[in-house]
Amino acid sequence: MSGPGLVPAIAVHGGAGTVARSSLSAAQEALYHAGLAAALKAGQIVLMQGGSALDAVTEAVVSLEDCPLFNAGHGAVFTNNGTHELDASIMDGRTLAAGAVGCVRRIRNPVRAARAVMEDGDYVFLAGEGADRFAAEQGLELVDNAYFATDARREQWQLVRAGGGTALDHDAANLFAVLPKTPLDPGRKLGTVGAVALDREGNLAAATSTGGLTNKHAGRIGDTPIIGAGCYANNRTVAVSATGSGEVFMRLVVGHDISARMEYAGSDLAAACNYVVMEGLPALGGRGGVIAIDRGGAIVLPFSTEGMYRGYAQGDGAPVTAIYR
Amino acid sequence: MSGPGLVPAIAVHGGAGTVARSSLSAAQEALYHAGLAAALKAGQIVLMQGGSALDAVTEAVVSLEDCPLFNAGHGAVFTNNGTHELDASIMDGRTLAAGAVGCVRRIRNPVRAARAVMEDGDYVFLAGEGADRFAAEQGLELVDNAYFATDARREQWQLVRAGGGTALDHDAANLFAVLPKTPLDPGRKLGTVGAVALDREGNLAAATSTGGLTNKHAGRIGDTPIIGAGCYANNRTVAVSATGSGEVFMRLVVGHDISARMEYAGSDLAAACNYVVMEGLPALGGRGGVIAIDRGGAIVLPFSTEGMYRGYAQGDGAPVTAIYR
Repeated sequence: MSGPGLVPAIAVHGGAGTVARSSLSAAQEALYHAGLAAALKAGQIVLMQGGSALDAVTEAVVSLEDCPLFNAGHGAVFTNNGTHELDASIMDGRTLAAGAVGCVRRIRNPVRAARAVMEDGDYVFLAGEGADRFAAEQGLELVDNAYFATDARREQWQLVRAGGGTALDHDAANLFAVLPKTPLDPGRKLGTVGAVALDREGNLAAATSTGGLTNKHAGRIGDTPIIGAGCYANNRTVAVSATGSGEVFMRLVVGHDISARMEYAGSDLAAACNYVVMEGLPALGGRGGVIAIDRGGAIVLPFSTEGMYRGYAQGDGAPVTAIYR
Repeated sequence: MSGPGLVPAIAVHGGAGTVARSSLSAAQEALYHAGLAAALKAGQIVLMQGGSALDAVTEAVVSLEDCPLFNAGHGAVFTNNGTHELDASIMDGRTLAAGAVGCVRRIRNPVRAARAVMEDGDYVFLAGEGADRFAAEQGLELVDNAYFATDARREQWQLVRAGGGTALDHDAANLFAVLPKTPLDPGRKLGTVGAVALDREGNLAAATSTGGLTNKHAGRIGDTPIIGAGCYANNRTVAVSATGSGEVFMRLVVGHDISARMEYAGSDLAAACNYVVMEGLPALGGRGGVIAIDRGGAIVLPFSTEGMYRGYAQGDGAPVTAIYR
């Protein structure tokens, strides 16, 4: 079970956005750190037992989906018709196998549905009712759409509606701050969770999941379930999970672009990621971040926003988590 | 209106697949050639009047959507619940602006909805009922879902259902041949239409549209509406529209990969397209083709199947169309 001696590693994110240091109390910060650490440990246990990167990113993202603090699974934001529509994706760098679901409403853990799509093999991407029905056929746990709601998200949605219907991201300022005093910045659309991992066999994997934009138009699909945009893994190069201005990430095909810069232009991990996050995205008005791990286990977590909920763990080392720059 | 002196050009495809020479009569072949030529002329008129590549690919794809021979718009295949779900996308190489719709059921011309999503600017990708509603809000022409049906497609669907429910592509053998004698090859899932163009100003654009797979699982989204997979345009490199085994095209991020090979690895248009179509796709069990035009106006139309409905027109020259190798 020791493989070629690689030290397995995992990184996670819980979204990038406007996270002003003043907006979080120490107790609130501690909740986010604990949520990130729990996700890292869920993946780390898999990896240290010789499990696959694919299983590690699945378990890490399930943990983030189940945590109400993050905009994915339980705790997802509301659409403009008061419901929840979730997107998720997963990719196996060993085989380039991939699966994704979009606009699902009844699957407790959308990343498990993405995984089931991948393993079923007939399709890569299922959306809407057809995807919910597929998950039911596969025996995945279904929930009522109201399962995804939290009081904090409902307040956030009502505030956005009252403020003219602009979209708003998952961020700490909105979950905890005195909401009416928080300026509604339409750019803060950045809530997503994700994980990337390298296992002992040298296999890379990535997974991403989101509840999308608060008050989004029903049917909107962002970069999260788009293979090559919000999620990409390729054993020759890198595993990437993105969070940010989804539409710009789609136009730049961010995940595949990072891989292509490494494979075709000879960029290293940091150069490829930094260019895309710090230059490519801002040139089109986009912002956010990525987490990425290369085939040697190097990890980078660049972001252009005030903060990004993020963390990593290498081997059996203690998880390292962070929020601000 | 003459710009920098570039000769504008356009290419179109009407799907790749198993098109046995013996399966089409001369009269039937003539119908396909006429359909392709009409689409080319629709785009060529725009370009020769000094219009944009974006307008040219829109008009060419509308023409293919309206033609019942091709699996897009009127003439789209049936899903496994007897309805039609259509996908389309468009991308502007000048700005990297993009728009897409997935699983739409009521929009007469899905490519116009993709264009409307792009021009509205808030989103890149809308799916399902939300996308239909957006199109209605934008004043696009809506139709009853039955508008997309043709007798030939209904027979094809009923045959596929009777044969065990495998998916089947849009191809001439199935539309015209004595159907019960035609072996049902589950690999022939390849019906799509698309256009790529270069205008006098040196701007590239691409558009793609499809009815998807016959008897597909409701909710299945293939590569057609995925920016970077079935549709990609970038003035620095290339405009690409793909047709083939959509799931493999998604895993390889075909459109962006061709662009990245040109931009980062220094490949020319033909080398980049040939590698992806003839080596990359088959290595993962995929097949099909692409049409691509580079910023100098060079056009390639490689495919790995028996045939691909295709054609191109340069300047005010007569459209050139072809079906077989």
